[in-house]
Parts: sequence; structure tokens; C-alpha cells
Amino acid sequence: MRQILIMGAGRSASSLIRYLLSKSESESLHIVVADLSLALAEKKVNKHPNATPIALNIFDTDERKAIIEKASIVISMLPASLHIEVAKDCLELEKHLVTASYISDAMQELDEEARKRNLIFMNEIGLDPGIDHMSAMKVIDEIRSKGGKMLLFESFCGGLVAPESDDNLWNYKFTWAPRNVVLAGQGGAAKFIQEGTYKYIPYGSLFRRTEFLEVEGYGKFEAYSNRDSLKYRSIYGLDDILTLYRGTIRRVGFSKAWNMFVQLGMTDDSYIMEDSENMSYRQFTNSFLPYHPTDSVEIKMRLILKIDQDDIMWDKLLELDLFNPNKKVNLPDATPAQILERILSDSWTLQPEDKDMIVMYHKFGYELNGEKRQIDSKMVCIGEDQMYTAMAKTVGLPVAIATLLILNGKITTPGVQLPINKEVYLPILEELESYGVVFYEQNMPYFGYNPDLF
Amino acid sequence: MRQILIMGAGRSASSLIRYLLSKSESESLHIVVADLSLALAEKKVNKHPNATPIALNIFDTDERKAIIEKASIVISMLPASLHIEVAKDCLELEKHLVTASYISDAMQELDEEARKRNLIFMNEIGLDPGIDHMSAMKVIDEIRSKGGKMLLFESFCGGLVAPESDDNLWNYKFTWAPRNVVLAGQGGAAKFIQEGTYKYIPYGSLFRRTEFLEVEGYGKFEAYSNRDSLKYRSIYGLDDILTLYRGTIRRVGFSKAWNMFVQLGMTDDSYIMEDSENMSYRQFTNSFLPYHPTDSVEIKMRLILKIDQDDIMWDKLLELDLFNPNKKVNLPDATPAQILERILSDSWTLQPEDKDMIVMYHKFGYELNGEKRQIDSKMVCIGEDQMYTAMAKTVGLPVAIATLLILNGKITTPGVQLPINKEVYLPILEELESYGVVFYEQNMPYFGYNPDLF
Repeated sequence: MRQILIMGAGRSASSLIRYLLSKSESESLHIVVADLSLALAEKKVNKHPNATPIALNIFDTDERKAIIEKASIVISMLPASLHIEVAKDCLELEKHLVTASYISDAMQELDEEARKRNLIFMNEIGLDPGIDHMSAMKVIDEIRSKGGKMLLFESFCGGLVAPESDDNLWNYKFTWAPRNVVLAGQGGAAKFIQEGTYKYIPYGSLFRRTEFLEVEGYGKFEAYSNRDSLKYRSIYGLDDILTLYRGTIRRVGFSKAWNMFVQLGMTDDSYIMEDSENMSYRQFTNSFLPYHPTDSVEIKMRLILKIDQDDIMWDKLLELDLFNPNKKVNLPDATPAQILERILSDSWTLQPEDKDMIVMYHKFGYELNGEKRQIDSKMVCIGEDQMYTAMAKTVGLPVAIATLLILNGKITTPGVQLPINKEVYLPILEELESYGVVFYEQNMPYFGYNPDLF
Repeated sequence: MRQILIMGAGRSASSLIRYLLSKSESESLHIVVADLSLALAEKKVNKHPNATPIALNIFDTDERKAIIEKASIVISMLPASLHIEVAKDCLELEKHLVTASYISDAMQELDEEARKRNLIFMNEIGLDPGIDHMSAMKVIDEIRSKGGKMLLFESFCGGLVAPESDDNLWNYKFTWAPRNVVLAGQGGAAKFIQEGTYKYIPYGSLFRRTEFLEVEGYGKFEAYSNRDSLKYRSIYGLDDILTLYRGTIRRVGFSKAWNMFVQLGMTDDSYIMEDSENMSYRQFTNSFLPYHPTDSVEIKMRLILKIDQDDIMWDKLLELDLFNPNKKVNLPDATPAQILERILSDSWTLQPEDKDMIVMYHKFGYELNGEKRQIDSKMVCIGEDQMYTAMAKTVGLPVAIATLLILNGKITTPGVQLPINKEVYLPILEELESYGVVFYEQNMPYFGYNPDLF
């Protein structure tokens, strides 16, 4: 039996554990699931004979090393900041490591040592980062292998609520860390390149500069720009590309409505509000509006945001119960962002019967034999239920498949890696298809970045 | 002869030096003006027999201590960050110190030691901070001495161009550090209290939430909120006040136009623009606008900012030459804010014959004998020329007057101080009047904070 150690049994580990357990007989695997909560680890392995759930305090070095020692390969699904200690243990104990997180500077520093010991430290192999790298590099490599020259690459991804569970005016529910949704886009201007010109969008305008996307069978979406679209320019080999843009997908109308919070200052995480604990939702809202001796909070809100009474924007605000004088925030020393997250959670929390949805959309523009062409590649994944969500599936399956490929010697390049090489992405994308994670490609004439054509 | 050492002969030192030289005979003063640039020090003392201009490298400790040693009192007009070294020397050599800057934490830490040695370290005694403290505390103390209870304090100040030199569409020129004007309001939400409710305004809305002010003889002004209006709440003894607001004064229409730069992201100082050195003004502007294959930069700007062709906002943009393809930025590795400052400097630099203007406006609401009353206190100061500007006068004269009062034993309270006590503000405000810095007070019924009454 080969032992796979999975550290962290949280939301994104469900599909990962199920996949590996399903292969445990044929592949002679024993799966150890270690979590701070033994109950959570037990729940995820569900008494499977080839699995051992254990309690683990990740900060106990001896305990951690003892269980890593016994493994053939380690998967860290811990919070990203905790990977580095595990990685150092893996170096010392000579174990391969797989994570779904961005390569930190500290992780990158282990590259040389990992190569020396012929260890594979595979990172960024979840959904985004992960499936985005693999599905993009597959098409880019195909274009290049034919002698094509890349002109444009736009890549969009979003975690949304599935159409069958989409029952609020925002067409949105929290399917992943709500805090990241509230803080999205903060911390600096968005930067990208369009037709050879660098473009910058400040936070205050980010949600008003969206692009529209159409996915057959699922309707229309919009996307706002990610902060740094140029991060992978060199890694993908696109240094000379004219257009490079990455964005986050929402249903049409979300961004315009979200921008109301941005304009009011409700997404600010930089200061603590006075007496937040005893504040009502209505008082929270009123904190961002001018004082007036007689005008209501509602009319001040309408006036400052210039919202007509029959505007759907107004109904979106009402739906969130922002003007309720009886609901209390109940959060001591909270920032506006923390309070907004609390208020949104009342309306946007997935219900037990709700399903989530992942949408990914790439556009590749290229020139081949003097002709300009475009490929659009789209993937939609719907969750099964609250345990096996689309998010858990798309994050966990690539991790699980990669782990088995490494264990079986099919992935061999050592060092700190991300999945941009054929040896990695080809077998993983192929197997993902059998689990319903399928990219549909469309060939079309090159549109460039020409908004009027849509 | 008593020797006064003035460190720093920059713009704000002109009126200060002139005042002290004018008193040098009657008060037996010798003025040493020390600056990195001997030429500048020489220019400011203009061969006056009771003055010695000297070159000083402030970072040379021996040199610095040697000249402080000889002084009876020290005035630091150096950049604020350099005061602390001078203050430590003054402690060691037992000299009084006067600055026009905010009390830093490091400066505050010297309080106990200064008291022990009976030294006066007087700070925040320029214009803002300075005259604002003094003129406010005078009225607040008067109200309190009659048994009145403070309900409201709003305080506004602005450095503007004088009406006779006001010849551009923005009704604004740089009369002080341009960089601070470009960065104004950044770094966190504005916070204040109105009628007992804490209010917060994010940067993106700061310039759209102005108040109007009327100053007889000078017309209408507007003010946007300062970042922290509550800084002096306890120091002024206003812990229970219902309304506390501080703002920056501009001519009406400035803020709405400035907000265009904020919305576009041109005031951002957090990142460096690609190839800023070779960028034209037009390319700079286009960096903040969406790509379009045929639409001009002008039409994209109008569209994104929703500006009609006959809107004065448009003329304000044209006046700045923002669409000029031939003017180059010529700044390597520059942030948007640095480039915007460069562009604005073309249009907003004071010309040799231009004069500046300082406007200060306080509102005091209070209750006395069961009646609610209000006092508005206003001051306007116009500069003489480019040397003796209103800014130099209002910053330098209080520093000079305070220095002489300390030297003559009229101000006696030792320690790290700001001018909120009668012994300081009464003689200074009185003498300032003879130099044309006069507050006009109006008594009226209490308006509270009721925007509809204006």
C-alpha cells in the first residue's frame, strides 16, 4: 500500500478525498486525512476501509514530521500561509508535495534544493490557479506548435450560484470565502494591456468597466478586471502579446450594483467603525450618508446614488435589508467590510439544497499563415450538492489526479512547479473530462479587442 | 544682543525673517538664518545689519550643535521629519524651540524632559495647524467662560489664488506643496461626527460631498472633508460635541472637477506607470480609458465621465492640455500622481505677478441660558507678492511672534506645547491683527447642521 497524506479536510478537500478513495483499491492506496478537527476528517473519509482520519496540530513539529515521514506523497490543503513549513519537512524527509495555492517567494526558494533531491513540489494545481493554467497552456501550445503567433489572451473565471439555485436579485451567493468577495479589487489599480497599450483602472471605477461574455446554454455574464493581468505573461511565454487581460466573472448587473457599496465606502477594511457592535443595519447604512434633520436614510441613499424608485438597483438594496433598524450588526470593533460581509451573509449564504457553479472562459487571438484567427474556450461546472460543490470538484480533482500521476511516475520533472507543461496538463485535462470538467472550443475570425462587434 | 536661530530659509520663512528683523533694533535681536543654500539665506536677510546668513548641513551633528549652542532660542522651519534631531539638541543644550509642524510621537516623547529643564517646545504654531487652533480656542474659551455648552464646531481652511490673480477655469493655482494637493484625501476614509452620528466618506466620494461657505466680499467657496476631523476633539475639550467637522476650502466647482481625476485613477501614487518618461500627455490620459479601435481619446473621456460637450467640466480638462500628443511627461518611473502634478504645474503655477489667498472659516454652535446660538468666524489674507505670500505671512508671523514672546518671558509654560492656551493665543492673535490677519465674527441663531437652510 502507498500512503497519501492529505493535510486539511476543509471544503476544497471533499472531491479530492473521494477521488483518491475511489482509486484506492485499483491503485493500492491508503489515504490518511489529517485535520485539526478529527470529526471533520472522519466525516470526509466516511469510514472507508482504505482511509485513516487523524487529528493533527500543524504547529506541533514532531507530530507533523512523524506523519509526513510515513507518507509516500503529501497533499497540503491547509491555508496557503502554512504550506511552507510542510514543504520544508518534505524536503528534509524527501517527499513529493502537491498544493493548490500560489507559489510564494518562500516556496520558490526551495526550488534548487527540491531539484537536487529529485522531489516534485507541484503548486497552483486547483481551479484558479490550476485549471486556468492547464486549459490555457494547452491551446497556446497547440497554436505555437502550428507556427501561430499569439496576439491576444483574455482569461475569465468566476464562482457563482448554479442557475437552478439562482433566486436572488443579485444572481449571486457566496460559494467561497465571503471576505475575499467583499475585498475583491482592493489594494491597488488593476493593470492590463490592450492592443499594445497599458491600461489602469482604479478601484473606484473597477466595477463600471466590465466586459460581457456569452456562454451557450448559460446565458450572459460580465467580468471585471483582476488586479494584475500581467502576472503570468512571461511564464506563459507571452512577452510580446498585444492584449493580456484576466477578469472575474459575475452575472450581468452584479458589478453595477456592487459599485454602490464601493461608492458608499462599505467595502473599506482599513478602519474600525465606532460602536459597531450595537449598530443596526440601518445605522451602518446611514454612516455613509450625509446628515439630514428630516430626510430618511432611504431617500438620502437614493439621492446620493442617483437611483430612481423603479430602478432594479433599488430593489437589490432592499433585498439585503440594509435599512432594517432592528437587525443588529453584533460585531465588536468591526471594519465596514466585515459588517458588509455579515449583512450579505444573511442573503447570500448557500442553502442546504443550493448548488454552485464555476464558469471559465478563455479567448485566444493569433495569427497563422497570414490569417488572424480566434479560439474561445469555455467550461461550466455545476456542483452536486453542498459537500461536492463545483468549487470542491474543480479545485480538488486536479490536485488528486496530479498526486496519482506523480506517485505513478508519470510526472517526473523535479522542483517547485506549476502545471504549464504538457506532461502535466495533458493527462489531467483528459481525466477531468470524464468527471464533467470539459472545455468547449470555438474557432472564429479574430475580433481583436473590439467591443463594438459584440 | 539675543540670538535667534532660524533653521531653514524656505518659502514659509520670508515673513518670519522680515518680522524678526523689523524688531531687531527695539528688541536687541541678532538673527541667524541657516540653510543648506547660503544663497537662499542671504536672499532672505537681504544684507540686514542684525542678521547673519550661514550655510548649514543639518546632518552634520557637530556643526548643528555648534550653532544651536550660540542661540538664545531656535526656530525650525525645516521639513517636519527633521525637527526631532534639532529638538534633541535643544534639550541637551537647554534651548527653547518653535516649529510650525504637527507634534510627532517622537516630539511628544520629549515632553517630560523638556518640562524638567523648564524648556518650551512650541509646535503647530503656523497657519493650519496654528492660527486655526488659536482662533478656535479663543471663541470656544469665551463661550465656555460665559457658561455656554458647545454643540458644533466646524473649521475650514484653504490656500487659494487671490481674486485678482484668479484667471483659470479651476479658480485654483498651487500656492503650497503641489504634491500634497494631488494626494489630498488619500490613505483612508474621512471621518467626522454630525449631530451625534459618526460619518465616513471614502476617497472616491470625498470630492462629491462638499459644503458651501459664503465669505462676504469674497463670494462663495466649497469645502471637502479632511481625513480625521476628530483629532483635536479631546485637546479642545469637545468630547461631548454633537458635530465636529474639518474641511479644506476651494472655489465652488473645483471638487467636482477634481473628482474626474479621482475617478480616472490619475491621483494614484501607489504604482509606477510603464514607460512614463516617453509618454505624451495624451497617452497618459488614454492609459485610464478603455481601448477602442477608432474612438478618440476625447470621446472616450467624455463617455466614461458622462460629460456633455457644453459642460464646463470639459473646458476645464481642455484647459490643462490633457489631450496634447506632443507634450511629453519626461519623468522616468513616475506614478500617476507625479505625472498629474507635472501636467497641472503647467497651468497652475503662480506667475511672478500672482498673489495667493488664505481663507479660514470656523462655525461655533452652542447653547447658553437655554438658547441655541451660533458664531461664524472668518479670516481672509491676501499675499503681497511671490516672496511675502499670504501663506508665508500666516505661517511665519505666529511663529515669529511666539518666539519673541517666549524670549521675553511672556509665554512661560514649559514642555511640548501647541497654542491652545490663553497666555499664547491672546497676544499672538492681537498682534496678528495689526498685520492684517483679522477674524470677523458674526453672531446668529443656531442653524445646527442643516444643509437646507443655506
